[in-house]
This record gives sequence, C-alpha cells and structure tokens, in this order.
Amino acid sequence: MLYTPPPIDPKAPPVRINLLSDTQTRPTAGMREAMARAEVGDEQVGDDPTVNALCERVAALLGKEAAVYMPSGTMCNVTATLVHCRPGDEILAHETAHIIAREGGAHAAIGGFQVTQLKGADGQFTPETFRKALHPRTRYQPPQTVVSVEQTANIGGGTIWKKTALDEIVAIAKQHGLVTHMDGARLLNATVASGISPRDMTAGWDSAWIDFSKGLGAPIGGVLAGTRAFIDAVWQWKQRLGGSMRQAGICAAACIYALDHHVERLADDHANARALARGLSQISGIEVQEPETNLVFFKPDGAGIAGDKMVAALRQRGVTLAMMDGRIRACTHLDVTAAQVEETIGYVREIVRAA
Amino acid sequence: MLYTPPPIDPKAPPVRINLLSDTQTRPTAGMREAMARAEVGDEQVGDDPTVNALCERVAALLGKEAAVYMPSGTMCNVTATLVHCRPGDEILAHETAHIIAREGGAHAAIGGFQVTQLKGADGQFTPETFRKALHPRTRYQPPQTVVSVEQTANIGGGTIWKKTALDEIVAIAKQHGLVTHMDGARLLNATVASGISPRDMTAGWDSAWIDFSKGLGAPIGGVLAGTRAFIDAVWQWKQRLGGSMRQAGICAAACIYALDHHVERLADDHANARALARGLSQISGIEVQEPETNLVFFKPDGAGIAGDKMVAALRQRGVTLAMMDGRIRACTHLDVTAAQVEETIGYVREIVRAA
Amino acid sequence: MLYTPPPIDPKAPPVRINLLSDTQTRPTAGMREAMARAEVGDEQVGDDPTVNALCERVAALLGKEAAVYMPSGTMCNVTATLVHCRPGDEILAHETAHIIAREGGAHAAIGGFQVTQLKGADGQFTPETFRKALHPRTRYQPPQTVVSVEQTANIGGGTIWKKTALDEIVAIAKQHGLVTHMDGARLLNATVASGISPRDMTAGWDSAWIDFSKGLGAPIGGVLAGTRAFIDAVWQWKQRLGGSMRQAGICAAACIYALDHHVERLADDHANARALARGLSQISGIEVQEPETNLVFFKPDGAGIAGDKMVAALRQRGVTLAMMDGRIRACTHLDVTAAQVEETIGYVREIVRAA
Amino acid sequence: MLYTPPPIDPKAPPVRINLLSDTQTRPTAGMREAMARAEVGDEQVGDDPTVNALCERVAALLGKEAAVYMPSGTMCNVTATLVHCRPGDEILAHETAHIIAREGGAHAAIGGFQVTQLKGADGQFTPETFRKALHPRTRYQPPQTVVSVEQTANIGGGTIWKKTALDEIVAIAKQHGLVTHMDGARLLNATVASGISPRDMTAGWDSAWIDFSKGLGAPIGGVLAGTRAFIDAVWQWKQRLGGSMRQAGICAAACIYALDHHVERLADDHANARALARGLSQISGIEVQEPETNLVFFKPDGAGIAGDKMVAALRQRGVTLAMMDGRIRACTHLDVTAAQVEETIGYVREIVRAA
Repeated sequence: MLYTPPPIDPKAPPVRINLLSDTQTRPTAGMREAMARAEVGDEQVGDDPTVNALCERVAALLGKEAAVYMPSGTMCNVTATLVHCRPGDEILAHETAHIIAREGGAHAAIGGFQVTQLKGADGQFTPETFRKALHPRTRYQPPQTVVSVEQTANIGGGTIWKKTALDEIVAIAKQHGLVTHMDGARLLNATVASGISPRDMTAGWDSAWIDFSKGLGAPIGGVLAGTRAFIDAVWQWKQRLGGSMRQAGICAAACIYALDHHVERLADDHANARALARGLSQISGIEVQEPETNLVFFKPDGAGIAGDKMVAALRQRGVTLAMMDGRIRACTHLDVTAAQVEETIGYVREIVRAA
Repeated sequence: MLYTPPPIDPKAPPVRINLLSDTQTRPTAGMREAMARAEVGDEQVGDDPTVNALCERVAALLGKEAAVYMPSGTMCNVTATLVHCRPGDEILAHETAHIIAREGGAHAAIGGFQVTQLKGADGQFTPETFRKALHPRTRYQPPQTVVSVEQTANIGGGTIWKKTALDEIVAIAKQHGLVTHMDGARLLNATVASGISPRDMTAGWDSAWIDFSKGLGAPIGGVLAGTRAFIDAVWQWKQRLGGSMRQAGICAAACIYALDHHVERLADDHANARALARGLSQISGIEVQEPETNLVFFKPDGAGIAGDKMVAALRQRGVTLAMMDGRIRACTHLDVTAAQVEETIGYVREIVRAA
Repeated sequence: MLYTPPPIDPKAPPVRINLLSDTQTRPTAGMREAMARAEVGDEQVGDDPTVNALCERVAALLGKEAAVYMPSGTMCNVTATLVHCRPGDEILAHETAHIIAREGGAHAAIGGFQVTQLKGADGQFTPETFRKALHPRTRYQPPQTVVSVEQTANIGGGTIWKKTALDEIVAIAKQHGLVTHMDGARLLNATVASGISPRDMTAGWDSAWIDFSKGLGAPIGGVLAGTRAFIDAVWQWKQRLGGSMRQAGICAAACIYALDHHVERLADDHANARALARGLSQISGIEVQEPETNLVFFKPDGAGIAGDKMVAALRQRGVTLAMMDGRIRACTHLDVTAAQVEETIGYVREIVRAA
Repeated sequence: MLYTPPPIDPKAPPVRINLLSDTQTRPTAGMREAMARAEVGDEQVGDDPTVNALCERVAALLGKEAAVYMPSGTMCNVTATLVHCRPGDEILAHETAHIIAREGGAHAAIGGFQVTQLKGADGQFTPETFRKALHPRTRYQPPQTVVSVEQTANIGGGTIWKKTALDEIVAIAKQHGLVTHMDGARLLNATVASGISPRDMTAGWDSAWIDFSKGLGAPIGGVLAGTRAFIDAVWQWKQRLGGSMRQAGICAAACIYALDHHVERLADDHANARALARGLSQISGIEVQEPETNLVFFKPDGAGIAGDKMVAALRQRGVTLAMMDGRIRACTHLDVTAAQVEETIGYVREIVRAA
C-alpha cells in the first residue's frame, strides 16, 4: 500500500505550512509577470515561440537533440514508453517507481506493457538486480524493451541514483538491446545536490524529462527530451492523448522563468530538509531517513504515536504532509521557509510529549 | 483525404489576416490580466479554486451534475469514450467527425473501439441513417455503445445539428441502450447562432463538452460535463493520460473570462462569415457553401484556379487559411475584423482576375 | 445491419439440406481415418511433424517463406494485423470485410487499429477508391499501414477479386509504403474458379492465409503464410492469444487430407451454386446475384415474401440458410448435392406459390 | 530469469524418456478411437454435441453454471481477465504465475492490465501478503479487480494451494470487492493428491478452468467455467481472439475420454514423482524439493555439476527435461513409467560420479 491520501477534515484550520508536496508551489510574482507578458502562438502546430524556446533550452540542458512540452510529467512518461515499446513488451522499473505506483496503471492500460517490479533499498535497484531480471527472447515472455529509473526516487526517500550505477545500468541495457528512460521529475534536485550537470546525469539515457511544476515552482508542465525522431513520434501520441495545446506559451513562460530563477535555490530546500531531519531525529522515538534532497521520510511509531495520528495532529496545527508507504513524507520547496521547518519540529515535539 | 496542412513558405510575408483557425486566437489584454491575478491551488487533488469555479459554471451551463477541466478538447473526447465503452465496443459517428478524422486514431489506439463511419451531407448523419446502422447483439459484431455528434460539424461546413435531429438521435439511442456523447468544440457557436440555450442543446446527451481555445479565445483547455459518477471515472483516465495538472487556475481564469466576455460576440464572427461568403459568391466561378456559423468553405476551381494555388496566393498577400477535404476553409474569430474580411474578398477577386 | 443469425425454432424438423455455411461441413470417413492415424508432437514448441508438414505445404502453395497453423481464420487475420501495425495505425478494407463485420471489433479491441471502411460494389473497392483514401502523414490522422482484401468477398456475394485489380492495389500500396494482407478464407474457391494458381493470386501480398474449415471440409484451422520474420513475430502473438496448441497434428492431418482430396472438387460446389441461381432466377419475383463461386445471394421480396419469412419457411422443410445484409445467402459445399439443390429450388417455388 | 528452453543438439539421440513436460503426452489408442468416432457440429454457433457434452461435464465437475471449450489454457486465462477487468485494472498474482511468466505479457498486451507480482515461497503468496498488497481506491493506482492463483503452482514446484489458504484469499477478496480466478492447469493433480473434490477446491472462485493437454493426455484444449453471464461474455472474446472453432467435437471427444480414463491415474504420476525425488535425494550433492504432485525440481550443483550441464548430459542418454528458474524440472505423466524413473535416477548417479 504505497500511498494514503491525506485525511480531509472540514473543520481543520487553514494550511499555514505546506509540506505535502512540491507540486503545490504557487507561482511567484515574478513568474506571474513573465506569464502575463509571454509571446504566444499555436503550440499544436509548432507555432508558439515561447514553447519553442523552452524546448530548445531543455534539449540543450539535457544534451538531447529535441524536446517537447507536455501538460504533466505523467504524459512525459506515458508517451515515452508508447514510442519505445510495442504492446506486450516489458519495462523494468523499481516497484515503487512513479510509472508503477502513481500513474493509474497507464503503461499497461494505454500501451499494453508489462512492468516488471524490481526490488531494492531506497527506491533503487542495483545494476546486478537489473542484470538478473533479464532473460533470453522466448515466445513465452514479453520482449524486454525499456529500463526506467526515477531520479530522484520519490518513495525511496528522494534518494539520488549514483552516476556510477546509472552508467552501469546503461551499459547492461545497451548490451542487451534495451532502451533507457529517465523519469526526471526531480532530476534537478539530484543535479543540484550532487553537483553533476543535468547533461552528464542523463548521458546514455535515450529519453529523459524534467518537471516544472514541482520544486521549480511553475504551475503546469514537463519537458521530454530525446532524439529528433523520438520527439516526432512522441508528438503523434501527444496528439492522441489530448496533450496538444494552443497558446501554451503562457505556461511555458513560467518554466523559462523557473530555469532562470529557481534552479540553484533548490539547495535551500535541501538545507531545509536536512534541518528538518536533524530536528526530528533529536526527538526520542522518531525514526528519520537521512534526506539526500528535499524529501524527509520519518516514522513516529517509536514515540508511541502512529503515523496517521501524527499527520492528523499536525494538520490541526496548520501543517500538512502525507503518508506514503507507511511512513510520513515531508517535502520542502519554495513555499517552505527555514522558520516553518523549525515551527514544525516544535509541533512534532509537542505532539510526542502529549502522546 | 480530409486535411492538408497549409503550405509553408519560409519566404512568405508575415500573416496579417489569420483565417486559418479559431484555435489561433491570442489572449486579449483583459484575459491576460485575469490570468495574472488568478487564485490557484493544486488542480490534480481538486484544490484549485479557479478551476473548480470554472467546472461548476460549465456544469450549470450544460445542465449536468459535474464537470472537469482538460488541457484540450481531444482529451475530452478521448476520456469520454474511455469511460463509456469497453475494448471491442463500437462508436457511431459521422465519417468526417473529429474523433475519426483528427485525433490520430486515438479511440482505437487507446480504447480499442471500432468507429463506424456514418455518411451524410454537411458532416451530419440523419436519424434514419443512425437507426439503419444498428444491429442486434451477436458474437460477431462489436457491441454498439456510443453515438457521437460534433456540434457544430467542422468539416461539414460548421453546420448546426438541428435540435429536432438531436432529439431523435437521443431517442433512438436510448431505445437501443446506447450512450450519447456530444463533441461541443464549437457548441457555443451553435447556441449563439440558433438561439437555443446550451442546456437545451445538450439535454439528453450523457456527456458534452465545450472548448475554450477556439472562438472563445482562451489559450488552453476544454471542460467536459456529465453525471458525477461519469466525471469521477473520467478523472482516473485524465490521470492516466497525463491530463492532471497543478496550478491550472492560471488557465482556467482565462476560460472564466471568456464565458463573461466572449460568448455573445461569437455573433460578430458569424456576421463576418456571412459577409465573407456573400462577397466570395459574387466572384464568378467561386462556389461557396452558405455558412451557418463561423466557418466558410469555398472552391475556386470554377474560376480556373485550384484550391491550393488560391491558398498559396493568399498567403503571399499575408492571408492564411486551410485546405480541408478538397475545399478552402476560412474561419472567422475574435482576431478577425470586418475590414479584414473585405480585404480578403478583394484579394480573392484580384487572384481570380489574374488566373 | 450485416448479419442476422438464423431463426431458431425448437419445433423445426431436423436439417436435411445445409446451405447455411461451408463452415458446417463434417469430416468424411477418409479424413477421419487420416486424423486417427496422424503422427503428432508438441505443436507449441514446433515439434509436431504433421503440423510442420502442413505449414510447409501451404507456404509452398502460396509462394511464401513460412507458415503457421492457427485454430481459426479469425486468428490468422488478427495476428497478421498485430504484427503489421502499431496501435493507432490505420487499416483500409471494404466496409463488409470479415475483419470489420465479423470479428467482434478485434482489430480495434486487441490491436488498437482504426479500420477505414471503403465502399464499393460486390464487396470490393476499386484501386481508385483505395488511392483516394490515402492521405499524407500528419499528426492528426493515423498512419496508414495495411490494405486488406478478402478473397472471395463473402458478403459481396462470394465475388472474386480480379488479378488485375489485386495487382493495382499492390502497386499503389507499395508506392505509399503500405503492407498488403489477403484474407483468403475462400481463396481456393477463387483460384479453382478462375484458373489462377494460389501462388499467382497471392503474389505481392505480404501475408495471406487459407481456411481449412470452410469448403475444404476439415474440422479446425487456418494456415497463415508470409516471410520467415513475419511468421516468427506472429508466433509471439499466437502464444499470447492462446492459439498455441499441443498435439495439433490430429487436426492438421485433416487439412493435409483436404489439400489432397478436396480442392479440385470445389468446382462441383460452384456448379451447384450456378444451378441453384439458375433455378431460382426462373421463379418470378426472385432476384438473384449471379454467383462467381459457392455463395448465392437472393431476395424473394419481388415474389411477395420477405427474406426472413422465406428462410423460416425453408427451415420448416428441413433446409437451412442465412440472412446476410438484408438478403438470403445459400452456400454450397461438400455436404450439399446437386439433387439437394434441385429439391431446394422446388421448395422455394412452392413457398412463392403459396405466398 | 524464469525459463530456459532446453538445449537443442541436432546430434543428440532420440528422446526415450520424456520428463520435459506433461504437455507432451500423446493420445492413447483408446483416445484416438474416441476422436475418430466423435459426433460433431459447428462449435462456433454452439452446435457441436460433443463439445457441449464436455462443457456441461466440466461445469458440473467444478460446480459452476456454465463452461466453454478453448484451444488452450492460455486462452482460458486471457479471456477470463478480459471479462473480469477493464483496461487499467490491477490483477494480483504470484510473481512466478503462468499469467505473468509464460503468456508473453498477454494480460497487459491485450487487456491493458497491470499485474502486481506478489512474492512467497513455493510459488504461493500467503493470505497476509495478499491483504497487505491491497490499497484504497485512488486516482493514482489501478483499481484492484482480480486475484489469481495457479493450482498447482508450476514453477513453485507443483505445490498445492491448501484449501484453508484458498478460502482465506476468497474471503479477503470478497471483502474488498475483488473477483477470484483460478488457473487450474493442473487442478486435477491437486485434487487427486489432496483428496479434495474439484468442486470443493474451486468453491468461491468466480472463474476456474482445467487443462486437458497436460497430465490428462488429450491433444488440445482447456475448459473454462463460471456463471452463465461470465461465459457468455467470454464467448465474445473467444470470437475476437480467434478461439472459436468449427467441428471441435473431434478434440472434445479426447477430453471426455480423459475425464473417464485419465483422472485417477494421476496418482501414478505422483508416485513416480516421489520415487524420482527419493532416488535423486540419495545421490550426494543433489538438492531435491519434495514433490507434492507430478513435478520434481532439483539442483545438482552440490555434486559439482551445473544444472544445464546435467540436462545436456541426460539428453545425450535419451532423457529430456527442462531448466526452470535456475533449477531442473522433471515432470511425470502418462508416457513416463516407473522403470523409466529408475533408469533416469541411474543416469543422474552415473553423471554425478563422472563429474
């Protein structure tokens, strides 16, 4: 049971501290102004200059030939596998990956793909686990076509796939004729935290994308990159899925603004996450996973209070966060300040004391 | 061959008169301001107040229980049939309908539905043609599940399905257990032109939607309406297709603005279309279909010039329009003035004279 | 409404004359003996010697590299398009073709293919109709991948596609990059009637198959042929659909027997069909389509009796036949004698007189 | 890597002892005679009396309302989930189950279903593992619709799911609104070995089937049973997949013969399996899983010889068996005698000594 929606209590006070998700970030004043002034055209026929500028920029950032703007990261994942695979093909991914756990079974539902659910600590499988899951071609098993990683591994704790592991996975994949796909929903968190450039991090990955509506703070969209032929084929599916838009430059302008102003500041979110983890770990009975980026997973059970009770108690104090995979997930982002982190730690201490 | 993309000539002058499509409308200053000031939340979890307000308004307008915001009209059509049908079901629609001719085969590709291609003049099938296409349930033929109409019928000439025909189709459908779906990409053109309210026009139709990025002038989105249970099921597919967005209130604000300011003015587009048709029909050899809304289809062949040559010659004069189904389509919308219509007529006369 | 199942009357006398379908032929004594003595192995792993012998024989007969045995002709059609197409592709076929009218929407349901329904007399479209249905590649329309013909055209009246028309269709298809598929359910009826060899008749067609459970009189199976790579890919789908069997040599033995004993005698069925048509046409008010092979379509309406009434009246006399597409279809085959044909004509005359 | 096809050596001697699979059984003389004399009709329209008799018999055996004959067990599994689920639904099964490991990804490819791969010893998941894998309905995860077990668990060692575990799984499934499906490829092995009747073993399972081409020794077919409404819906998919046959009574006669003559004798296969296991376990270094039915899994690595080397060495002595999931699988069936089992043990001893 990977995900429990947060309890909704109509009598709960307004949310003051939003640790629920970096998807909830609101556009800043500067970003709104960029949107209001955006030059636009008809995106569906390739005529929106702001969308085109964004796509060129992301393609360059990830070292790919071409890119396409999408209304969501899910559509980046779905169209990528739709192009890479044929019905009855097999995709290999970690059992907690977004494509398995959070996209409503889309890869089976739309594409007809069987997704093999690899195991491994912290949301990551090892190159060895990947290698062992490969099998020779027979009539009895699906052709294995794609290996997919999620950088960072959300449910794994926002952990960063190491460049060495990525390189090994690419090498094994190429040796066996598999295509490589990187779900980069929080790729820039990984690159900012590790100091490895996005271009280097996605080198060897046939398709990769970044999300603008998470830590980057834009309201809508992801950008998927790959070879020009791949992007052309993706466009056909974007059309079929209903992802082709019109004057999308309004939204793309926010993404360009985010690239200019919100990338380096992800380091602040990571510092806040570390501060939160440090504070929580000093409370007796709270078990905290050391954060690598902007996600902090913790369990209060040792302090005599169940996770969902803690979430509810924090909500009563105006703090919202999620239960995920049996643990509490706190997510830092540009609408969360260092002071709010301290305040939250204080609330947790208070709730534990009262337990 | 239903559609030919407009010829692209890199040396062509800039477009001054855009009769290509009402999808190309640019947001007005007022609309941009509404977007810049929009209150937003996380649309994917139902927390965006502006999106919620828009959906309530469209549900009321169409007399349905609930509604959902989508990044495109295509996604409205695709998710509707995904909920109404199971793989192997049959959808009945006119052979020129958007769901057959313009969505990349999505209903077969994603849903596994066979679409029966009904014939009929002006993009419409008669109730009798529909009735004759029905067959009893056998193991050999797909279960017939949905009948779909496109109001107005784009490739049919922007023609309006008469209320009496719609009612008869609904009656036949209900008698045979079929679900009714209305693709309302230009529904408000039909209601403004006919004086029938949207609520009356969609009465008896289980699902219906309107597009905001056509004549209404908003940059992005359509809103699909139906019963609450239907909309709940649509949400699951919206998630799978990647149509769930985040701070979509930015875009929804433009749609609300359009409802407030751009509905009644569709009558101006219709007047411009009639003026264009009248002017063209006075040029010897030009065959014009009498427009019912904002689309004017004409053939210049009788004047000794082929359609694509006329399109290219107009493009050299800064006027853009499309070839569709062997005819030229001119589309009037809020970025087209009465003066531009007169100017265009003059160019056509000039080109015919020189032919 | 293409097909009406024959009325079932529990009080009807036993069937003595079976003109319903050539699918109803019973194995002869000689065929049963061949089955009882068949050498068998595990077909699923390629080890059944009788199946292998049958496949080699059909591959040679049709001039293809390889072939595969299937439990039905429908599976031949379905696996062929599954290999030739990707979801969202378009198949072009006559609107009455088996793949549209009689396979439960399988090509959409399983493959995700949109089937364009071409029009034309006698179950056949002209090369010109085919050419006009082609369109350039755009994002808006499905890629056109396969053109399919059904030889003979069942609902068209058992008509034979002329070799010249087939060649023209192949030429147009190749010019536009389409794959060619021949549904040869009654291909041998066409070759026996026309004197053109199966190899010549299928020349230029990338995939083609023949059915053994129709006029050839075997109980089960069709054999699909094409290149070796195509057949290898078909095998993967045969496995997925559940068409891989075990000691299928039992059934394949009947097919080999049919090739040895039941091909040339199809000429008798054609003679019986002509005799039936001649006799019926001499009854005033009966409108008969001149048969080209073993199917006779006729309408008794001019004699003051509706088709379904005639079918019911014949059934009361021990004769069974089908309503199809608003007409009566009589099918001759190896369980129908010349005397039975005369007897049937007599009954029709009697029923008309009494009308 | 679940399955390795047996090495094919063209210079290997003929197979004398076939421990590869019970799918390789050849029809006996009595069975062949039953087939030769079978009364037949057109199965596709429900007119084959022998097929109908078989279906009634299996429905009664499994305590279900109705049943349908299929060309393979795979088609029983595939059509069952196609009826039980809608695209995007989730099926829960053991990670080594036939529907995941051996059907070419069919449930994703054809149906669009995501299959959750449960873990557990001996090819079985515990009721507790099943319960923990359930999640509340959200937009983010596929609706969980079906739980499937394979009785016996082939790759798990031919192990028998205990009646108590089955009952618990049914109870949990019903409580959460899931449908229950039993893949009974070797169900009769389980019932003969356990003394529990087929009717009791499948009680509470909404759909269940038995295979006739495994230990029962018939050449072709499985029979799927459930409610009448379920079987009616299955027929539509049988038609689409190409599983509808014609004079299938020929094959069904063999299945009826098997029910009359080959069920109780499965106990002999189990005795042979136990004898084989006992003999192998007395050879130093051979690790043997205690067989519960007719499958014996063993590893010779402890004797200094790898599994595939052992398989190849046995093949040189005229004995064939398979590598599966890194172990050797020997399968006893009606073409394997007690003497052959002793002979095989002797060869293994000889090969180990020489290692």
